Amino acid sequence: MTFIDFRSDTVTKPTEEMRQAMLTAEVGDDVYGEDPTINRLEALAAKILGKEAALFVTSGTQGNQVAVLTHCRPGDEVILEAESHIFLYEGGASSALAGVQTRPIQGLRGALDPLDVKKAIRGEDIHYPYSGLICLENTHNKAGGKVVPVQTMKEIYEIAREKDVPVHLDGARLFNAAVALGVPVSELTQHVDTVQVCLSKGLSAPVGSILAGSQSFINEARKWRKRLGGGLRQAGVIAAPGIIALEKMIDRLAEDHANAQLLAEGLSTIPQLQVRVEEVETNIILCNIKETGLSNDQFLSKLKDAGILAVPFDDGIIRFVTHREVTNDMVQTAVETISGIL
Amino acid sequence: MTFIDFRSDTVTKPTEEMRQAMLTAEVGDDVYGEDPTINRLEALAAKILGKEAALFVTSGTQGNQVAVLTHCRPGDEVILEAESHIFLYEGGASSALAGVQTRPIQGLRGALDPLDVKKAIRGEDIHYPYSGLICLENTHNKAGGKVVPVQTMKEIYEIAREKDVPVHLDGARLFNAAVALGVPVSELTQHVDTVQVCLSKGLSAPVGSILAGSQSFINEARKWRKRLGGGLRQAGVIAAPGIIALEKMIDRLAEDHANAQLLAEGLSTIPQLQVRVEEVETNIILCNIKETGLSNDQFLSKLKDAGILAVPFDDGIIRFVTHREVTNDMVQTAVETISGIL
Amino acid sequence: MTFIDFRSDTVTKPTEEMRQAMLTAEVGDDVYGEDPTINRLEALAAKILGKEAALFVTSGTQGNQVAVLTHCRPGDEVILEAESHIFLYEGGASSALAGVQTRPIQGLRGALDPLDVKKAIRGEDIHYPYSGLICLENTHNKAGGKVVPVQTMKEIYEIAREKDVPVHLDGARLFNAAVALGVPVSELTQHVDTVQVCLSKGLSAPVGSILAGSQSFINEARKWRKRLGGGLRQAGVIAAPGIIALEKMIDRLAEDHANAQLLAEGLSTIPQLQVRVEEVETNIILCNIKETGLSNDQFLSKLKDAGILAVPFDDGIIRFVTHREVTNDMVQTAVETISGIL
Amino acid sequence: MTFIDFRSDTVTKPTEEMRQAMLTAEVGDDVYGEDPTINRLEALAAKILGKEAALFVTSGTQGNQVAVLTHCRPGDEVILEAESHIFLYEGGASSALAGVQTRPIQGLRGALDPLDVKKAIRGEDIHYPYSGLICLENTHNKAGGKVVPVQTMKEIYEIAREKDVPVHLDGARLFNAAVALGVPVSELTQHVDTVQVCLSKGLSAPVGSILAGSQSFINEARKWRKRLGGGLRQAGVIAAPGIIALEKMIDRLAEDHANAQLLAEGLSTIPQLQVRVEEVETNIILCNIKETGLSNDQFLSKLKDAGILAVPFDDGIIRFVTHREVTNDMVQTAVETISGIL
Repeated sequence: MTFIDFRSDTVTKPTEEMRQAMLTAEVGDDVYGEDPTINRLEALAAKILGKEAALFVTSGTQGNQVAVLTHCRPGDEVILEAESHIFLYEGGASSALAGVQTRPIQGLRGALDPLDVKKAIRGEDIHYPYSGLICLENTHNKAGGKVVPVQTMKEIYEIAREKDVPVHLDGARLFNAAVALGVPVSELTQHVDTVQVCLSKGLSAPVGSILAGSQSFINEARKWRKRLGGGLRQAGVIAAPGIIALEKMIDRLAEDHANAQLLAEGLSTIPQLQVRVEEVETNIILCNIKETGLSNDQFLSKLKDAGILAVPFDDGIIRFVTHREVTNDMVQTAVETISGIL
Repeated sequence: MTFIDFRSDTVTKPTEEMRQAMLTAEVGDDVYGEDPTINRLEALAAKILGKEAALFVTSGTQGNQVAVLTHCRPGDEVILEAESHIFLYEGGASSALAGVQTRPIQGLRGALDPLDVKKAIRGEDIHYPYSGLICLENTHNKAGGKVVPVQTMKEIYEIAREKDVPVHLDGARLFNAAVALGVPVSELTQHVDTVQVCLSKGLSAPVGSILAGSQSFINEARKWRKRLGGGLRQAGVIAAPGIIALEKMIDRLAEDHANAQLLAEGLSTIPQLQVRVEEVETNIILCNIKETGLSNDQFLSKLKDAGILAVPFDDGIIRFVTHREVTNDMVQTAVETISGIL
Repeated sequence: MTFIDFRSDTVTKPTEEMRQAMLTAEVGDDVYGEDPTINRLEALAAKILGKEAALFVTSGTQGNQVAVLTHCRPGDEVILEAESHIFLYEGGASSALAGVQTRPIQGLRGALDPLDVKKAIRGEDIHYPYSGLICLENTHNKAGGKVVPVQTMKEIYEIAREKDVPVHLDGARLFNAAVALGVPVSELTQHVDTVQVCLSKGLSAPVGSILAGSQSFINEARKWRKRLGGGLRQAGVIAAPGIIALEKMIDRLAEDHANAQLLAEGLSTIPQLQVRVEEVETNIILCNIKETGLSNDQFLSKLKDAGILAVPFDDGIIRFVTHREVTNDMVQTAVETISGIL
Repeated sequence: MTFIDFRSDTVTKPTEEMRQAMLTAEVGDDVYGEDPTINRLEALAAKILGKEAALFVTSGTQGNQVAVLTHCRPGDEVILEAESHIFLYEGGASSALAGVQTRPIQGLRGALDPLDVKKAIRGEDIHYPYSGLICLENTHNKAGGKVVPVQTMKEIYEIAREKDVPVHLDGARLFNAAVALGVPVSELTQHVDTVQVCLSKGLSAPVGSILAGSQSFINEARKWRKRLGGGLRQAGVIAAPGIIALEKMIDRLAEDHANAQLLAEGLSTIPQLQVRVEEVETNIILCNIKETGLSNDQFLSKLKDAGILAVPFDDGIIRFVTHREVTNDMVQTAVETISGIL
């Protein structure tokens, strides 16, 4: 059975062009800095992200954790959104590895209120940890792919610089935000010190993410990556599809967003489902199924039997994600199928 | 100048009897388990707290941190109240030392809602940390010395046991809670696995706290205490006043509570000050000074000039704490003086 | 300029067959356990290594560190050889990440003396860390690719089991040891609880290692891998060459060993160089250059100018490593060239 | 039964004068910096040790661990003597708490060879930890109370400064070294950045140690002490005996040294015992009992039955320590008694 797979944009498989690139990629030993394809990818990524330097990492989690390890010392406190990926979905790694205390702040639609950030930054007192880092997430996954506005990022960065606290951006889906806003991604990254972006979600590379920042930051990050076991050898074979991801796959995210709109509109016409169409800003749709009387498991099981996959997200909330392998036709089929089931 | 010192009950100096006890205490080398006074204190504390075993530690922070280190592994998550001492005032130590992620939950009057605790306990998922510990605080300092009800503790403990998550109680001022409720302290500690109580706040010992729990827990805790440098030599000299604290000083906390009522009532009669008298349950008074038009610093400075000390607690909130060295007369003087200033 | 590259077997590039395998590999999202190629690789590796389960990791360092994190708690002590890779070359990661104390013991030709291991295991004392893990390395890189005898491993494992301390094997080049001994690799791994082997050194896969052990160990290891950012998505593209590495590349290590002998013999005929031919057991040659009067840098620079690469290893010691991309002819050319230079 | 207790100088009980000082000590809340007796002790200790500032800590372990936490970041390596207290007897705390890797180097009579230290300092390489700290121990306990010569300390410090690595001195028995050398203690501490000295060993205070260094170092150390739970309240009661320890007890260590000589000479006359009298430099005597044919436990048990206590130190090695509570007469009695037993 072939499924229409709305579980995540992480399920996207490499394109034929990416596969060919892996076949022919020029490689070397990256621990010696000799893999020309990795070097090309890192230079390209730094340029796109508007930072001095970039580092290939094997996952978004690794990019975020290397950032925390490089920015912070144990006993520092990291200010982040209460439903951010770093806080909810990285196994408590920032405390386990870097020894930092997480200070989650409830945001609105994924965006932290700059005043809350300002208030959360600690003053000088023997009882307090140091405020060591502010983490943002854009688009914000748990909030339903919401775009954090440029203005919000700007205000938070101004506060952070005034207080001398660095800002890291978990930009696993940052290109979705840039496409939704119609701005180059550097318009967003100018308001943070460091940023992590994924090559393997909507951009379809099989593996990998990028961490970018100043040259000195990346030099130090490279050592932490090595400690985490992220120093690879002939990494060029996976860097090659990453280059294609950055060069050719960003613009096509607009299709995913259009399909997400279509899906949201379709689902919103089904009486027992609640979808706020106007809140679907990128490629994630949150669908409230409470009025169906079904549990998340029951609902997803019915969908699966009918060839549709999605994931539970919260009590009575199902997440659908559009991506390269979900076509316009599939979206329409999905809406009709779900409508039929209910 | 002699001050009326409402800053904290930590400022209480040892009584004459305590000083004499230090003079005559039988001592030995506690690292060899040979200090008879420490041994007596630990046995007494275990009995009062209704636990198998107890350990002398040099501070409340040390007791709490040893508990976290003993209960948890790195990558665990600790559920605690959003304004708890462990989260706000211990320098991020539980993350720095034990590598655990803090998961603060907003409580009401210092008490976590059992349903919120239940929801915060993580299920099994590769992305999640393990829920390794639930921490309660009773009385709750930041909430103004509020007593967490026995029923709330009971319900949380039932949830915790069902989910196999241990519960630790930061009972720095637990005897205040017991006195306010008119119950033995073991009525409260029966609903937790481990508890830390301070000997040096209202109970007036110069130094030290107690960590209590099962025998096997305390055996392990002893090793963590040693790593933190809390293994002392002739500790009997500071254990001796601790015994007096537990034997003779608990009941007198009722006086501090009566004085706190008196102070609250007095302050509430001053027009520019807001004090919710009915919310003063133990020895802490929170006083809203916003209508004075003064900043915290300005207000405290005026008080200090007039011989009264207190501490800032939040924007426009001043904390007053009553204790053994604040008499009924001093409270009346203080109210008159503050009234005069405003 | 094309170099004869003796720096490391890590420089080996994927074979054409590996490249083709990447092109056609069936992939899925490994975080969901749905990448069939990864699943096939892990099952194959577990079988070859004689363990219940296996886990793909992105590097040898990651495999070793995940092992330490899974076996140990902070405050444990790890017994390892004084010149082992984990101690010398992993950035202090086992202490930085897992909080364990390293206890290096000087071995002989890379092999720990079982009696030294026995003596290093700590008894019960409040002052002592727990002995949490013993790490072996086979072949031993710093000792010059020496094979640790099966009998030594067996004796250490017996001591370890008696004392209830687990044993981990850093088998980055374990297949070299097995080929040198003429035994299946499981003959060696039966004497350890967990093992890490590299797919990317002599076996020529572009990226990746395997960590193997009991099913419950690997379940827990999977979570630590995720925390380190080693949870990949369409990892099948790099697992596919790994399967070829395990199925087709092990036997050919014998060629590398033959070439190493040839190189050792050749170099030993050059008067200013000292090479102990009888100590070259696998694919690593240590060459003492002190009598040339050249510094390591000067010597390596001269070689590089003549088209030959190697690495400094210690004061006056140069390491040469043979691998798939170094042919018999190249070895002869290299000997002649070096002879000519000196 | 009253024992002649040679187990450790840690067993010394406070003098009458110290007890009286506790009775009358002026105290305050040290977390607010208001305990005048602590402040006096810290100023006095800083002066004696020739450093800008000092901090009272509750034990030698706490002083050493706060030093490591303040000097280092996780992933740093600490160079120390292979049988030093920090490495052997602090529960692996420096790795557990500070995430540093220990790099033990075998010394001679407790003294590291400066050339070994130089060699152990790491260069710049992606695979290496940073060399974050060098720890010395003087006198060296496990080596039998040996004095590390000033010249050795000087040479190590010169190397350390050249390489920009700080040096910490575990001076738990540093005053014994100074007295043995007949120099002021600052003659030794000038060659280190930070130092920890115990008030509770030969100096007889009941509890506590001092950590000293630059003002900025101590400021940071104060925060780490707080995280470890070493921030005390009315700490003056234990600081008061500490002042007496520093003012009046240093010179009397010469008596302990004389008694140690006497004991060493006495024991050396007993045929089955080997004691190198010329190696007894301070108050520790190592006695080889192998020729008695008794195990450590058997030997110590016989001694205990005869009223003498000592501790096992190594296979066939018993440690005796002299201190204030062991008189000249007791030493003679002990020698006669042991002679009689064997």
